[in-house]
Amino acid sequence: MSVARAHSLCDLPLDLPWISPAIRPLTPVPWGSPDVPVSLLTVGSFVEFPVSRGAILSYDPTNNDPTNSVALLHHARKGPAVASPPPSAAPARLVVLVSGSGTNLQALLDAIGDDPAGFGAQVVAVGADRDSIVGLERAERAGLPTFVCKVKDYATREEWDAALAAATAAYRPDLVVSAGFMKIVGKRFLAEFGGRFVNTHPALLPSFPGAHGVRDALAYGAKVTGCTVHFVDDGVDTGPIIAQGVVEVTEEDTPEGEAALHERIKEVERKLLVEVVGRLARNGYRIEGRKVHLGHVGE
Amino acid sequence: MSVARAHSLCDLPLDLPWISPAIRPLTPVPWGSPDVPVSLLTVGSFVEFPVSRGAILSYDPTNNDPTNSVALLHHARKGPAVASPPPSAAPARLVVLVSGSGTNLQALLDAIGDDPAGFGAQVVAVGADRDSIVGLERAERAGLPTFVCKVKDYATREEWDAALAAATAAYRPDLVVSAGFMKIVGKRFLAEFGGRFVNTHPALLPSFPGAHGVRDALAYGAKVTGCTVHFVDDGVDTGPIIAQGVVEVTEEDTPEGEAALHERIKEVERKLLVEVVGRLARNGYRIEGRKVHLGHVGE
Repeated sequence: MSVARAHSLCDLPLDLPWISPAIRPLTPVPWGSPDVPVSLLTVGSFVEFPVSRGAILSYDPTNNDPTNSVALLHHARKGPAVASPPPSAAPARLVVLVSGSGTNLQALLDAIGDDPAGFGAQVVAVGADRDSIVGLERAERAGLPTFVCKVKDYATREEWDAALAAATAAYRPDLVVSAGFMKIVGKRFLAEFGGRFVNTHPALLPSFPGAHGVRDALAYGAKVTGCTVHFVDDGVDTGPIIAQGVVEVTEEDTPEGEAALHERIKEVERKLLVEVVGRLARNGYRIEGRKVHLGHVGE
Repeated sequence: MSVARAHSLCDLPLDLPWISPAIRPLTPVPWGSPDVPVSLLTVGSFVEFPVSRGAILSYDPTNNDPTNSVALLHHARKGPAVASPPPSAAPARLVVLVSGSGTNLQALLDAIGDDPAGFGAQVVAVGADRDSIVGLERAERAGLPTFVCKVKDYATREEWDAALAAATAAYRPDLVVSAGFMKIVGKRFLAEFGGRFVNTHPALLPSFPGAHGVRDALAYGAKVTGCTVHFVDDGVDTGPIIAQGVVEVTEEDTPEGEAALHERIKEVERKLLVEVVGRLARNGYRIEGRKVHLGHVGE
């Protein structure tokens, strides 16, 4: 375990291997800000605290005892965490991950195709966890490079995760979008893309997380459900929420009618994902603890 | 513990003391229906299974071993449970419970006052758990009888619960409405009024149950929240959902802005509660497992 010691932010060895340049905060808290520990987003694990939840390694200027820094971690979770780079003239680079028909991928491609200059992002590659899926066909039809990382091709889940992270990183994405990607990524992937990996879930989180969000909402007798676009962390559908869309459950939605309700949710989800990705790309964003602010710092 | 044995629904001793006439199902499952155990709603506890969750005592025609019936209880929770009496010409009788300002009570009184013949319900009494609250003043101003049951006036919580149940029952309500009633009722109250006791919660359940629904939604970073009108069971905000209303969380809603968001939720809640109580009263309802159907059987 790496433990850095520093008396001020300026003393921090920014080139430590466990600090990712990708998610190094671009707007660190000003030194000496009241009530907020000076903090730095780290990658990998620090005292087993997963970075993907927005772990912040804090340095108390009055005390460089690592134990004290550990204590500050929990406090720091409420503090500033990560911000996107300031919006630039170049469109944001998207890698989209798919496992099936790729309708969300298609919605993104269509929106970008409708306004290539204005959308603010471009898909630079499409990855999958299996061959011969419609999602990959869509990518090839659009002339996009694709890559496939199958779990069964690797000795361990960890190796698969590292391969997926490397294959994705090769396209230097600003954002990675899960468009119906059915695998849970691991620590390595999140270390690389935490705070930049966008997923959708067919329920109003934190209600009904997991693999059966639509079925569970029906079984519970919810009258309102919907979809959540969120950043992925190391929990199951627990990451910071970017946007949520609402779908009414009607008297006609029986527990057997899961597919019909899911279809209505998917319609909302596609529009919301396209809108969210466009806004993240065009306007930037900040994640402060659990709160996602669209628009860049200072806006 | 009472254990009834029967080979068919017709054999069931319907006058057992633990079967409440109030919530005896009006539309039992036809005998021999496929995939649904013939079931009967019971009151009180059967093998410690609380009735307020819609417990159903099931009889397997092929096996009258009580152990087997116990096993069916869990299955039966998904089956039909309770239905209101068929709508009648007389307005439904409401007892409203309050703990504070009684704005939801006022909303009900106003809606009934606007259309006394058409609303379908009348408030017959207002109960409270404390003296000298605005909610009681509103009731007195409207010429309604009131009653107060303070926990501290009773030796045990159970005695208070029984007294509250008796005081409420004296007004023979068809529905009991918690309009900001801040006490959790006990087994006796739920045995009497399970399936007829309506509550509101300031979140989209099952997200953010408990005493701090608004604060918890803000802390989680939810982008959508709202309110839930539900029947009370013996869990904390776990009962079958009647209706839900949506309120957007905006960028302006900071964790410190709990009161402002709560006010927007209350506006939606008042309208929803009035609408729901009117519909329950006018059209009747069925609770099947966790699913609440507005409108009477056969509609």
